[in-house]
Amino acid sequence: MILGIDIGGTSVKFGIVSEQGEISRYKKFSTDEWVSHHGFIPSLIEEIKKITISVPEIKGIGIGFPGLLSADRRKVIMLPNIPSVENVPVVEMMKNEFPDLLIKIENDAKCAVLGEYHFGANKGLDNFMLVTLGTGVGSGAIINRQLFLGARGNAMEIGHIFMPDGKTLEQHIGSNHLLEYAAEVISKANPDSTGLKRTKLTGLVALQKAAKAGDVSAIEIYNYAGNLIGETLTSVIRVLDITTILFGGGISEAFEFFAPSIKSRLNKNLPPYYSKSVALKKASLSNEAGLLGAAGLIMHEKVL
Amino acid sequence: MILGIDIGGTSVKFGIVSEQGEISRYKKFSTDEWVSHHGFIPSLIEEIKKITISVPEIKGIGIGFPGLLSADRRKVIMLPNIPSVENVPVVEMMKNEFPDLLIKIENDAKCAVLGEYHFGANKGLDNFMLVTLGTGVGSGAIINRQLFLGARGNAMEIGHIFMPDGKTLEQHIGSNHLLEYAAEVISKANPDSTGLKRTKLTGLVALQKAAKAGDVSAIEIYNYAGNLIGETLTSVIRVLDITTILFGGGISEAFEFFAPSIKSRLNKNLPPYYSKSVALKKASLSNEAGLLGAAGLIMHEKVL
Repeated sequence: MILGIDIGGTSVKFGIVSEQGEISRYKKFSTDEWVSHHGFIPSLIEEIKKITISVPEIKGIGIGFPGLLSADRRKVIMLPNIPSVENVPVVEMMKNEFPDLLIKIENDAKCAVLGEYHFGANKGLDNFMLVTLGTGVGSGAIINRQLFLGARGNAMEIGHIFMPDGKTLEQHIGSNHLLEYAAEVISKANPDSTGLKRTKLTGLVALQKAAKAGDVSAIEIYNYAGNLIGETLTSVIRVLDITTILFGGGISEAFEFFAPSIKSRLNKNLPPYYSKSVALKKASLSNEAGLLGAAGLIMHEKVL
Repeated sequence: MILGIDIGGTSVKFGIVSEQGEISRYKKFSTDEWVSHHGFIPSLIEEIKKITISVPEIKGIGIGFPGLLSADRRKVIMLPNIPSVENVPVVEMMKNEFPDLLIKIENDAKCAVLGEYHFGANKGLDNFMLVTLGTGVGSGAIINRQLFLGARGNAMEIGHIFMPDGKTLEQHIGSNHLLEYAAEVISKANPDSTGLKRTKLTGLVALQKAAKAGDVSAIEIYNYAGNLIGETLTSVIRVLDITTILFGGGISEAFEFFAPSIKSRLNKNLPPYYSKSVALKKASLSNEAGLLGAAGLIMHEKVL
């Protein structure tokens, strides 16, 4: 049995993952609480101790971190949400604490890719990219059945690609930014526009609901997001020649509303060699891709 | 001995390449003449026949094409300069003509990368990108000592990445476009600016000479090019995490004039993890990188 741990800016998720990708003993903790109480690493070790004592069948631990990792995958070198972990030899510390367990770490977006690759509906797909649309915009890729790490280990940071206005993709469509933009659009909208203007917009769920109800403003907001994603993906496709693209994360629930504008932007920007092969899909694992992929690090040794 | 053939939009170059990267029996033909007289492929076969008869020691032929190749490297699927070759089973045809020879084809910019990798001053470098600044803007990469092909075989088409104004990098700084821009700048320049305004600008050599002489307009033109290259490389670095970048092609002769603005743009755009490692260098092989790399396709079998 493998323990998968998905560390995010908001929460830390634990789960025991079976070969078939079933999650048991799922637990969720607040990242901030860990940081402010006992410190992040001591809290992490304590929680792992508890679970490994109660489930002695655990053979290994895979951990996903939302930051840049060292090329040798021994530590996290940039972790804006939990700076106290930066440059700490986290794998070595874990190995000292749990000498009988196999321990691996990886970037969280890359874990999500591994989750889709090993356990998702597109399991075993030779080449694809996963774009995770959440608070942040992460991404990762499988190229020739291998997790693509790039030259120094931190490939696929596409959320940080700049848009023409000098802001990054994430600064436009990271969920908080997208909701700010939505508030702006709504405040300017025609009062006759259905729904959104009258029903106060409280978040992504409301936005998606409004789009489903045919609200013009909501649809415009998703088109805006889709166009920016399409613009960024044009560059990424030119660099990687990957044309199968999955979308995960909270915003991807509204896939049907932003996918058409991505598709038409790619059709406009790219010659048929690329655009004919473009396949945009909703990722299959929703929120647990990262946790499953973290476990996959151990289960499928060859990926590292 | 290996026959290297570098096919370009303007000329086709032949050369016999030794293990050490020495070129002998160098020959150059006009691409247009081949196309308009006997047709491109018949001319190519005829020329190969002549040279293989007079040099029977030739064991293999490597050919670089300025276009997109099929994933299986049997044919060229997009070749704007010589459309008659598109989708022709060129490797099979060559094998029928020359059954005793090993025959391989590759994209020309990727050949140039292999040239630098096998024969250049940076020989054996684990990870680098080569950007070829000529009539077109090509590029290729070595990642973990392997030619990077991407998912479907045509990675690294960075010249076609869009700039904020909707034109591609190549449409800005491909040599003809850059010279157009230069003419515009010069026509507007202060008449007191040294050199360029008075000495009519006739091409890249004149532009470089003027920059060397300290001409303000010429220096401004290279800054302009450097900024656009830096903007594009920002995205490419985020996707590939490669920070060693070589520059080849005609415009790269003026490396000292455009490199500083690339460097400062990357410093501005990227966090220290990337920018601290950025190393910009002039490629070492100048014009024959493509020819050498084409030969390298055969010499270093493992690259394909």
